[in-house]
Amino acid sequence: MVRRGRQPSFCSSPNARASSNSTADPEDESDAPALHASRCARVGVGKLGILMMNMGGPRTQEDVAQFLSNIFLDRDIIKLPMQNILGQFIARRRVEKVKRQYMEIGGGSPIEKWTRIQGDGMVNALDRTSPETGPHKYYVGFRYTEPSIRSAVEEMLSDNIDHVIAFTQYQQYSGSTTGSNFNELYRVQRQLDPGSKLRWSFIDRWGAHPKLISAFADRVEAQVKRLKDDVRQKTPILFSAHSLPLNVVDRGDPYVAEVGGTVAYVVDELRRRGITNPYRLTWQSAVGPLRWLAPQTEDAIKSYGGKGYKSLVMVPIAFTSDHIETLFELDIEYGETAQKAGIGQYLRAEALNDHPPFIDALATIVKEHIDADFPTSAQLLLPDPGEESEQTAQTRQWIASQARPLD
Amino acid sequence: MVRRGRQPSFCSSPNARASSNSTADPEDESDAPALHASRCARVGVGKLGILMMNMGGPRTQEDVAQFLSNIFLDRDIIKLPMQNILGQFIARRRVEKVKRQYMEIGGGSPIEKWTRIQGDGMVNALDRTSPETGPHKYYVGFRYTEPSIRSAVEEMLSDNIDHVIAFTQYQQYSGSTTGSNFNELYRVQRQLDPGSKLRWSFIDRWGAHPKLISAFADRVEAQVKRLKDDVRQKTPILFSAHSLPLNVVDRGDPYVAEVGGTVAYVVDELRRRGITNPYRLTWQSAVGPLRWLAPQTEDAIKSYGGKGYKSLVMVPIAFTSDHIETLFELDIEYGETAQKAGIGQYLRAEALNDHPPFIDALATIVKEHIDADFPTSAQLLLPDPGEESEQTAQTRQWIASQARPLD
Repeated sequence: MVRRGRQPSFCSSPNARASSNSTADPEDESDAPALHASRCARVGVGKLGILMMNMGGPRTQEDVAQFLSNIFLDRDIIKLPMQNILGQFIARRRVEKVKRQYMEIGGGSPIEKWTRIQGDGMVNALDRTSPETGPHKYYVGFRYTEPSIRSAVEEMLSDNIDHVIAFTQYQQYSGSTTGSNFNELYRVQRQLDPGSKLRWSFIDRWGAHPKLISAFADRVEAQVKRLKDDVRQKTPILFSAHSLPLNVVDRGDPYVAEVGGTVAYVVDELRRRGITNPYRLTWQSAVGPLRWLAPQTEDAIKSYGGKGYKSLVMVPIAFTSDHIETLFELDIEYGETAQKAGIGQYLRAEALNDHPPFIDALATIVKEHIDADFPTSAQLLLPDPGEESEQTAQTRQWIASQARPLD
Repeated sequence: MVRRGRQPSFCSSPNARASSNSTADPEDESDAPALHASRCARVGVGKLGILMMNMGGPRTQEDVAQFLSNIFLDRDIIKLPMQNILGQFIARRRVEKVKRQYMEIGGGSPIEKWTRIQGDGMVNALDRTSPETGPHKYYVGFRYTEPSIRSAVEEMLSDNIDHVIAFTQYQQYSGSTTGSNFNELYRVQRQLDPGSKLRWSFIDRWGAHPKLISAFADRVEAQVKRLKDDVRQKTPILFSAHSLPLNVVDRGDPYVAEVGGTVAYVVDELRRRGITNPYRLTWQSAVGPLRWLAPQTEDAIKSYGGKGYKSLVMVPIAFTSDHIETLFELDIEYGETAQKAGIGQYLRAEALNDHPPFIDALATIVKEHIDADFPTSAQLLLPDPGEESEQTAQTRQWIASQARPLD
């Protein structure tokens, strides 16, 4: 970015505004010289919050119906005629099946647990590396379950936060994931914070960050080392990402190219570590009658079994922690597929979860955002070439209004 | 790769075989100590040829019909019922239109001119950086026109070449491009060289090579610098690559992910140079009734014009030199589209052509292949998950038979 390498300028930031809330924080009243850096930061950006945004998942069996209903009502994912009725209908039809899937992975989604472990580690690291903007506090804002984006914004308002870094936990950007989260954020802040007490900046994609790449490579390397000697170098690595309906791809959504980028970087890092296994990128979790991006991961597993491969390393490449797509779909469902197809050694790279280098990556990405003076990426402000919703256009205008003017 | 960093071992290569042809080369008879390195190389791999493989293009108006016919008969690109008849029919219907397009860019394709300039520069550099395997000679082998793969193999046999590096000039791998070239190579060598005088190794993809990325970034940077001040940082960069029919994507062809990788690397390199413009990857040149990968480049240009953008930088990201898709399609056809859409500043990054850092990249890629002892990438030996042709399976077996055993 243009601003990389610039010194942090919390006191002279073009965004600087006297924080009307800073008096609410007792620390701002202490004038000891040792606190100068901290006070300076408070003058510049005020009290900082970091909002970790993701899709969320049902905590319990009882949450499944609402979770699915929220997904199928989200027009950033899927557009249906009479969506209020049809979306609810599709969601209801899937409830029992999905409940059973969550039962098989312990009753609910671990996404909140992992996000909090990641958030705790991240703010601890930031308190060390960026004391002048600390102490740091993170908030969890999920799109389809509690703790929701709404709850998080309410909490930040009550905590007298001044500046929020909206930090998507999707590494690669899609209008149907991060875009949907930002749309919800726009609606929520407009309702809860009409006077714009909160100022926002955005970390919208980070699928090529070297520390993320290295963390992924660690997870893959660990599995490759488990392979039997005679197949260790020949075993295919299947990178698997959530598929997209082709109509989303067709409008120019950046997700597919960005996932390809992450894979290229990870493969390069693995090569530097002496791992040159062949690989493919495949797509999982397509549902419904629309045509989705292919090949499907499960089909690829069957196919490689049919072609005589006896081992595979699966790598979830587009999520930060375990979820139904790893614990149920990759491990249980596709695991059975693999077994039936004669793949005796079916290994799955661990999700990033609490891997310390990954938590270091999260902290580094936020630190770089702070040091670069809270830039909004130009990429986030470019609409897709295809048709976009009125909501997405409004959200982009709001994001642009929060961005610092370009130097 | 596992072998990166190993010392070259021309005299002790596991592939080493006494070259039955070396006596035909008068240089091999000179025993002066200064030539020791050269003789050593000859013992190891023998006399080296570098085969630059690409699609080719019609040299003159008269070549257009045969060129198109060859393309539409290629079942690695498109599978038609009664292909001999239907393929010819489609090709004939397009002849006049395509002839007019070539007329507009000077009468014929410049691909041979650029390939020879690149080849000359490449072998000159190799003679300096790798004298022990020199003098180096390159051959041009085109898939659909002269100089054909067949002519090149004939010439190499008559030159008493021992080892050929089949160096695809497609940076990113697709079964419909490099795969089709290697299939043709398999058929040709089987016919012309049944006793396997020629030994082969393969450079099958190089879309993430740092020197390629840097050369691309040079070409983009030059155009961004031409933009007017007020739009310089906001102008979208459209990376454009040849589209693929979705049925090729669906079988797991690696092209889409690899093009995404190249784009990610180039964007990263541009960022290091202070260029943070927004960008998208779009796909050009789809023809016929099948569904192809989208969004189409031309649609994206129209759309950005409609959304009020007045400037665009176009970047051909999947070809080594100018061709009909840059000189006619991007410059003339889409140029008119852009003008009609109100895009006053429509810039196109130059093709790599004779850019010295690009020629250095070619020489470096070959040098690294030599230094790594002519490895065959594991990636080339992994079939796509989807259905593959009998021909492709045979070609892969042949490639595997040429590969050194894994360490």
